[in-house]
Amino acid sequence: MKPKLDDVAKLAGVSSTTVSRVINNYAHLSEKTKDKVFSAMKELNYQPNSLARSLQGKHTQLVGVIFSDIRNPFFGELVSRIEKMLFAKGYKMILCNSADDPQKERDYIRMLMANQVDGIIAGAHNLGIEEYSQSGLPIVSFDRYLSDKIPIVSSDNYDGGFMATESLYQSGARNIAIFTGKNHEGSPTNGRLEGYQDYLKKQGLTPHVHELPFEMSPTLKNMEIKSILNQYHYDGVFCSDDLTALLTINVAKQLSIDVPKDLRIVGYDGTSLVRNYNPELTTVAQPLVDISTLLVSLLLQRIDDPDCGLEKEYVLPVKLVKGITA
Amino acid sequence: MKPKLDDVAKLAGVSSTTVSRVINNYAHLSEKTKDKVFSAMKELNYQPNSLARSLQGKHTQLVGVIFSDIRNPFFGELVSRIEKMLFAKGYKMILCNSADDPQKERDYIRMLMANQVDGIIAGAHNLGIEEYSQSGLPIVSFDRYLSDKIPIVSSDNYDGGFMATESLYQSGARNIAIFTGKNHEGSPTNGRLEGYQDYLKKQGLTPHVHELPFEMSPTLKNMEIKSILNQYHYDGVFCSDDLTALLTINVAKQLSIDVPKDLRIVGYDGTSLVRNYNPELTTVAQPLVDISTLLVSLLLQRIDDPDCGLEKEYVLPVKLVKGITA
Repeated sequence: MKPKLDDVAKLAGVSSTTVSRVINNYAHLSEKTKDKVFSAMKELNYQPNSLARSLQGKHTQLVGVIFSDIRNPFFGELVSRIEKMLFAKGYKMILCNSADDPQKERDYIRMLMANQVDGIIAGAHNLGIEEYSQSGLPIVSFDRYLSDKIPIVSSDNYDGGFMATESLYQSGARNIAIFTGKNHEGSPTNGRLEGYQDYLKKQGLTPHVHELPFEMSPTLKNMEIKSILNQYHYDGVFCSDDLTALLTINVAKQLSIDVPKDLRIVGYDGTSLVRNYNPELTTVAQPLVDISTLLVSLLLQRIDDPDCGLEKEYVLPVKLVKGITA
Repeated sequence: MKPKLDDVAKLAGVSSTTVSRVINNYAHLSEKTKDKVFSAMKELNYQPNSLARSLQGKHTQLVGVIFSDIRNPFFGELVSRIEKMLFAKGYKMILCNSADDPQKERDYIRMLMANQVDGIIAGAHNLGIEEYSQSGLPIVSFDRYLSDKIPIVSSDNYDGGFMATESLYQSGARNIAIFTGKNHEGSPTNGRLEGYQDYLKKQGLTPHVHELPFEMSPTLKNMEIKSILNQYHYDGVFCSDDLTALLTINVAKQLSIDVPKDLRIVGYDGTSLVRNYNPELTTVAQPLVDISTLLVSLLLQRIDDPDCGLEKEYVLPVKLVKGITA
């Protein structure tokens, strides 16, 4: 049997009115009270949103959008396009930058539940997923496995990794490295590494994998790349994101390594920012318009009908954009 | 006397309940009904938010943040920092990209009033300001004059323009142009142009002003810059934003103009993105942390006390970040 508001009140040792006030985010509630109520909600897997909705008979027309940080141009462009699509459908967006901080992401989900958003688009990198499945809200995910019930939209990471490596090979590279973020089990972005490895295998070449964590500062990444290029003398590098590719171009310049004669470089993402301001970079472009359209359309389907049948995965094709670096 | 909900209902020719449902954004209301109610609210200068609050006795802990487009790295970083500050104070952010579309901005303000955000941070470029002053909400503005009652936070645009031009002069330029956006009356960003003009006047040099509208596409801007550089043979350019400076560097490369030997370039904004990935660019850095901290702190003061005395303008110092382009 579904837990009720009264059950939460009983377990938390507070009145039903207090639970209702916590759910509706009234001011002047102590942190202690809120914690007690949220703990009880969690323990009972109580889903305030559906009740609140059925009581109030309305949607909030608000959608929570969680990404790591829009200072990254890829997320900046994705969020900007999601906002445009949501606005066209009469929705507004609560933007959450999780800043690669699991606690901040958890707090946000709690706040979004309390504020009764109609659904969530989730694309952050943290691993805590319990709160997503317990939130009781319609959710779609970008590039990240959350649970069997939450559809994932992603670009064809495997094909992109394969095609990036092929482009390096075809422009003459034979000693080809990959600069990648940390690869987590079940993450669709691992496909970039797998595509790279499979292409090299096909050519009988050895993979060289260097992990540069996503959250590493550009200054430290710069130092790390300098040390790698000095030590290994690669003639080709596939960077699993464009910003790392731009750093690699800068480091090559500092080390007087000629790009593309002595070092070929291919990135991944292909935002309009990079394509407009760094047209020299060869990169695998994700279809940002299609990705954002699909994320919004799937979420609105789920909001209209929580039980509607959706695929587990939606994989969108990528394309190679040729600059001069490979 | 302050207009009441009943006055709105009477003028709109609907029931008070309907007005209340429009204000609270219930689903299943016709556009026609909403239009009638909003027109009546506007005509009477009725401010739903204060009433709704006093009725409900709660804040929503939501703040509306309106900028033109976070795909621009300057707005991306500013919004990211604003979000961080708001989150630390227990607020969430509804992000609105006005996309340089006055109608979209107007619609957003209407939606924000209906959703009862506690306040608005406004930094978009459109000129329609009527809705801001009629919204009855606490507002602070970034780099844009809205009304005498709305405080403006900006960087020291005049000093920045002066110091950018000085840097071009000191590195040897004498035939110095400015690439600027459209300058609107009363806009604080005009200070960049004025600082440029005053420095040249001091040196007895002639200003050369080229307007490249902010909303022009990078491709068209590229063509325009190419035509200007071909025609005028400047030896120094102050670009009033970093993205235009990056385009100018790219065009110079295409035209085999040596930067900085034959052409010195200085930008404006100095986001962490540009400083990390284009460290070659000399630029005037806006204090993004101070700007976002101040915007949030002033807004929260106004939310706590709508009548609190604030300055009309808050001007924050800029600094020159030396790369190799000037």
